[in-house]
Amino acid sequence: MTVAAGENFDVQRYLARERRAIDATGARLMAEWLDDGATPVAAPICYALEAGGKRLRPILCVAAYRAVHGARGGAEPGMSDLGPEGLYEIAYALELIHTYSLVHDDLPCMDDDDLRRGRPTTHRAFDEARAIIAGAALIPLAARAAERGARRLGLSPDERSGLVRELLVAAGAGGMVGGQWLDLEAEGRSLDVDALESIHRRKTGALLAASPRLGGRAARAEARVLDALGAYGSALGLAFQIADDVLDLTGDTAALGKTAGRDAVLAKATYPALLGVDRARERARLEADRAIEALRQGGIASVELEALAHYAVERDR
Amino acid sequence: MTVAAGENFDVQRYLARERRAIDATGARLMAEWLDDGATPVAAPICYALEAGGKRLRPILCVAAYRAVHGARGGAEPGMSDLGPEGLYEIAYALELIHTYSLVHDDLPCMDDDDLRRGRPTTHRAFDEARAIIAGAALIPLAARAAERGARRLGLSPDERSGLVRELLVAAGAGGMVGGQWLDLEAEGRSLDVDALESIHRRKTGALLAASPRLGGRAARAEARVLDALGAYGSALGLAFQIADDVLDLTGDTAALGKTAGRDAVLAKATYPALLGVDRARERARLEADRAIEALRQGGIASVELEALAHYAVERDR
Repeated sequence: MTVAAGENFDVQRYLARERRAIDATGARLMAEWLDDGATPVAAPICYALEAGGKRLRPILCVAAYRAVHGARGGAEPGMSDLGPEGLYEIAYALELIHTYSLVHDDLPCMDDDDLRRGRPTTHRAFDEARAIIAGAALIPLAARAAERGARRLGLSPDERSGLVRELLVAAGAGGMVGGQWLDLEAEGRSLDVDALESIHRRKTGALLAASPRLGGRAARAEARVLDALGAYGSALGLAFQIADDVLDLTGDTAALGKTAGRDAVLAKATYPALLGVDRARERARLEADRAIEALRQGGIASVELEALAHYAVERDR
Repeated sequence: MTVAAGENFDVQRYLARERRAIDATGARLMAEWLDDGATPVAAPICYALEAGGKRLRPILCVAAYRAVHGARGGAEPGMSDLGPEGLYEIAYALELIHTYSLVHDDLPCMDDDDLRRGRPTTHRAFDEARAIIAGAALIPLAARAAERGARRLGLSPDERSGLVRELLVAAGAGGMVGGQWLDLEAEGRSLDVDALESIHRRKTGALLAASPRLGGRAARAEARVLDALGAYGSALGLAFQIADDVLDLTGDTAALGKTAGRDAVLAKATYPALLGVDRARERARLEADRAIEALRQGGIASVELEALAHYAVERDR
């Protein structure tokens, strides 16, 4: 099953608009919390955050909020009002967690990567110690951003603590960090597709599943809808990861903004290595379709979320 | 000014009892959150936490709570009822943050230490990548522990978010992490006492000042009392750090459980290096007296908090 996004929907324009709103939120929070750069560790934190990136996790969060809350006043699909600042603060918390994981993953003792988002990685621009410190410093900032956003949206105390807890659990030992661990354990061992999938479900999947769920929580979605958003995010996450593996193999360093062919150098198990490029692409599209089907099952109509599922597999970087 | 602790107060027995209660809380939380060790990254997290240590930060938190809340039913000074589980969860959050900072500080690119609390450091027992991952994983666990403890104590939504926010701010870029950064920046440079103090005020001082303040918040202390607890913790923190510097120079590795003489090897600025051992000891005692004076000014009567100020400078490890 393949679902076409709305005909009038300009996904690149939509993504660019959202990225601007997300980056503006991040700049505002960091200026306030890092005292406009006067805080000692501000430089590598801002360096890591300002490197750009797709901002997929916050975009998923915001799109899910809009889908649940109901589109308001947009002249064309995907161009509805941005939504309240508190929502973008919750969304930015996801980017703070994601950026911390990238800074640590790039370290010499992990993936040892020199290039990220087209620039030297944080430990290359600064040094290892400063990259480790700055990466860890992003975690309390994320918890603060989520808590403040939830408060500004007027969520109840229980809704607020539930939302922050979900972010921290997704980021933590049973989620993203657990996936980093499994990834390390898998080094130098041959994996089958099931083992690889279980790593991805945690390492990138946990936070990608939490992203639309946090948007749903921000809009006070009922449990059934949250479950559908989680299933959507989880399938999209796997689609995204498989597409990433394919891009690492077939893309070029300049377009990707990170070193192409890195997985092969590290002898990492990947979908194209295990299945071949064509079957890996097919599998990614299947997961994108599953993501869209999860929305249908949950009664969620959203041009934006559908477009994001397609984008996850059809992007070229 | 020197203040004697209550004559009947057995500080070693008191500390041992508190450590048992704190470690029991930690074991309970980790068993629940790390699924009794089944979570991938549980091994290095538990390794780092179970290495022991003084548990000074949680003990300060609990003692401050009791001082504000009023001693209840103890047969002798310092042996009052332990207090509610929620309080110990808040207290343990401080230990989780402290342990994360130790795991990262010991890394090869930072202090490159092999021994901590009498055992191989986490990156020696596992490896660098696993130590970095496990250290960072402690941060969301700390936020969860503080939030849950505050909820179980029945604090209001605003009191809860204020308490968690204070923990995260003390741990973060403007507090402990900012101090780690300043410490790195100071490497290989000659510092005067003022510059050294400003590092310590952040690196160890921010969390040590927050520790009794969090206990005060748990007991719903008014702002004036919180300020006094913060001034107490800040002075005690400096006293503790100076005593640590002296012990690094005069103690031995077996008693300390960490490599003695490390500061000299790293050419780190320390109080005894700048002032001489005798004047450093004098300064530590002065700060301990200041800590106790802060309690007086705040109208806080606590045999435990007074004894902890003395302990900070009189310990031999």
